[in-house]
Amino acid sequence: MTEDIGAFVPGPRVRIEGQPGGPLSGLTFAAKDLFDVAGVPTGGGNHDWPTGRPVPTRHSWAVQTLLDAGATLIGKTITDEVSLGILGENAFDGTPVNVRAPGRVPGGSSSGSAAAVAAGICDTALGTDTGGSVRVPSSFCGLYGIRPTHGRIDTTGMLPQAPTSDTTGWFARDAATFARVSSVMLGEAIPTALPNKLIVAVDAFGFADPDVAEALKPMVERLTMVIGGVREEIMAPQGLSVWARAQRTLQPVEAYNTFKDWLDTGNPRFAFSVAKALVMGSLTPPAEQSWAALMRQEARGRMRYLLPAGTILCLPTTPFPAPLRGQPLSVLDPLRDRITCLCAQGGLAGHPQVNLPGAAVGGLPVGLSIIGARGSDATLVAVAQAMERAAGA
Amino acid sequence: MTEDIGAFVPGPRVRIEGQPGGPLSGLTFAAKDLFDVAGVPTGGGNHDWPTGRPVPTRHSWAVQTLLDAGATLIGKTITDEVSLGILGENAFDGTPVNVRAPGRVPGGSSSGSAAAVAAGICDTALGTDTGGSVRVPSSFCGLYGIRPTHGRIDTTGMLPQAPTSDTTGWFARDAATFARVSSVMLGEAIPTALPNKLIVAVDAFGFADPDVAEALKPMVERLTMVIGGVREEIMAPQGLSVWARAQRTLQPVEAYNTFKDWLDTGNPRFAFSVAKALVMGSLTPPAEQSWAALMRQEARGRMRYLLPAGTILCLPTTPFPAPLRGQPLSVLDPLRDRITCLCAQGGLAGHPQVNLPGAAVGGLPVGLSIIGARGSDATLVAVAQAMERAAGA
Repeated sequence: MTEDIGAFVPGPRVRIEGQPGGPLSGLTFAAKDLFDVAGVPTGGGNHDWPTGRPVPTRHSWAVQTLLDAGATLIGKTITDEVSLGILGENAFDGTPVNVRAPGRVPGGSSSGSAAAVAAGICDTALGTDTGGSVRVPSSFCGLYGIRPTHGRIDTTGMLPQAPTSDTTGWFARDAATFARVSSVMLGEAIPTALPNKLIVAVDAFGFADPDVAEALKPMVERLTMVIGGVREEIMAPQGLSVWARAQRTLQPVEAYNTFKDWLDTGNPRFAFSVAKALVMGSLTPPAEQSWAALMRQEARGRMRYLLPAGTILCLPTTPFPAPLRGQPLSVLDPLRDRITCLCAQGGLAGHPQVNLPGAAVGGLPVGLSIIGARGSDATLVAVAQAMERAAGA
Repeated sequence: MTEDIGAFVPGPRVRIEGQPGGPLSGLTFAAKDLFDVAGVPTGGGNHDWPTGRPVPTRHSWAVQTLLDAGATLIGKTITDEVSLGILGENAFDGTPVNVRAPGRVPGGSSSGSAAAVAAGICDTALGTDTGGSVRVPSSFCGLYGIRPTHGRIDTTGMLPQAPTSDTTGWFARDAATFARVSSVMLGEAIPTALPNKLIVAVDAFGFADPDVAEALKPMVERLTMVIGGVREEIMAPQGLSVWARAQRTLQPVEAYNTFKDWLDTGNPRFAFSVAKALVMGSLTPPAEQSWAALMRQEARGRMRYLLPAGTILCLPTTPFPAPLRGQPLSVLDPLRDRITCLCAQGGLAGHPQVNLPGAAVGGLPVGLSIIGARGSDATLVAVAQAMERAAGA
């Protein structure tokens, strides 16, 4: 497979061999350029980010964990600027090619990681997911991808954005690799027991494009076969758009607070859309923030109620497949807002979510997500394996 | 004088000889990178501005006029991004050195033009002034500088920002050169008759730092000697800060409208402060805009009342000399707001204004401005000459 898809950050490619003999021996991985690699400046997808910052002297926890388990690091990948973006178009470093959907965006912000795995350049890759940054590129590039339970994976050495939503995730092309990597990252074996109740989030299926809902039907049927005990529920009684509004209120405020000292002292350059998100974060009225914090509590309560141990919920990961590259903001902004309607529960409630590939609309991948109880990450990976087996059967 | 002061845009330096035998023969000039020069991309101080735009095939009116009059173009100078800035620190191209105030900003947005003239690299230079972009660097660099009557100078081939405030101006180190260039640009002889009434804007002197007001006293006394008929008046009965608020409301809205298609289709990179100004412009409530438009009418009426033919008004050009380079936005933003309090009348009312050098605070230049009736540009230049003669006498 060609490597010329613009997935890696410009400049010399870093390579660090994994420890011999580990459970991931023989695998290669890439790391989103938010993860520290010792001796390499962390770029953060913004050319002014590294200025005046020390070069990391230690690997981030995630990179160290994969190296210790035997995987070999083959490069650092392009990210949307300081992970603020969901489509994967970076004004500094360009847009990685989505080999599964040529002419389309890869999704972001973990754009280069998803693109590199989709292109077969590496076996797995580290991403981050605050508002959808692993889930969306997984869906658009046709990959397995996980947003783990919030707070479960050590984020040491990962450039933060909105810490109450930030997570470390990863991608793979096949369920077996996905399970190997997940077992190492989660620090537990992938179980054999599966959940026995399945919720279909009817509001989320209704919100997706009709052809996406249609394309996902066979996967939902397969999932029903694998899990059993299916029932339909509204996931967000207050409205998906209301949950999205809460997330779109809280996340930019938190991002602004993360970066405000840098903005003040460095006056760094950003693509207009990124700067705008930060400005909007700085302008959010306290009453909006208070309301959003309460809505987050409601969403947490709802997800906890829906998802006791042994139950999973499924929904379309994205409402549509990957949009075309290079479109105006006036086209992309409403698309981004629709994506947030399906992704907001991740940042709000912090439950683990896995994207399952296997469907397409007009040849373009689109994924089915499964969400479980907090801490049930490994069980979701087990479901992914069972689904792949069922598809092959 | 060294040329290594970072005043010119990166890349090969353009040079175009002036027509032989013209009134400006023997003079050299530079053009702010908002003015088209045939065959050279217009950079606009932002590395994403030239993308996808045709290279100009004609000179801007101002460049053509100076060339036709015999002056030789020796380069294009750094500007704040799309002229949005008043201090002269450009995140893409750097900060030109202010040789008159080392370690300090040159002022902007016509930063490179002012810096180059101050350093003796050229005799004159073209700038633009929307909210103070000629006046402020004139004050900070100790130069003669003019913001002409709004609408008087043809702006063809000049990158616009807020057209109802935009003007083309120029700088010089001495009054004789200033008069030669002004006569050509204004298309009229510099008169010998001087105004005979002088207004001292007491609100503006009260608003400036006390040591600036004190340092300007000898110049005001000299001006009184030259003009006679002195009286004190409040320039802005509604408040300098109220006029500034109106200008700070109208100008970003207009700038946003100028650039919004580019923002939408290009999602260009900007320094955070510049993007923020554009975002704020896009968010301004219509009621604020309506109020500001009415205040502009009040300001116009007031300036017309104060300045019949034969009367000029004087005020400090800036409330303080050039601030230190490289300060945080939290320090610079309040300084910028104070500058606007003394500059707002230019954009609001469109009267001509000339900065007279000759004072300093702690060795740092600070200028005295004179403002006249609309169309009295040449008379203000005559006053500049008379002041230089009086200082030498």
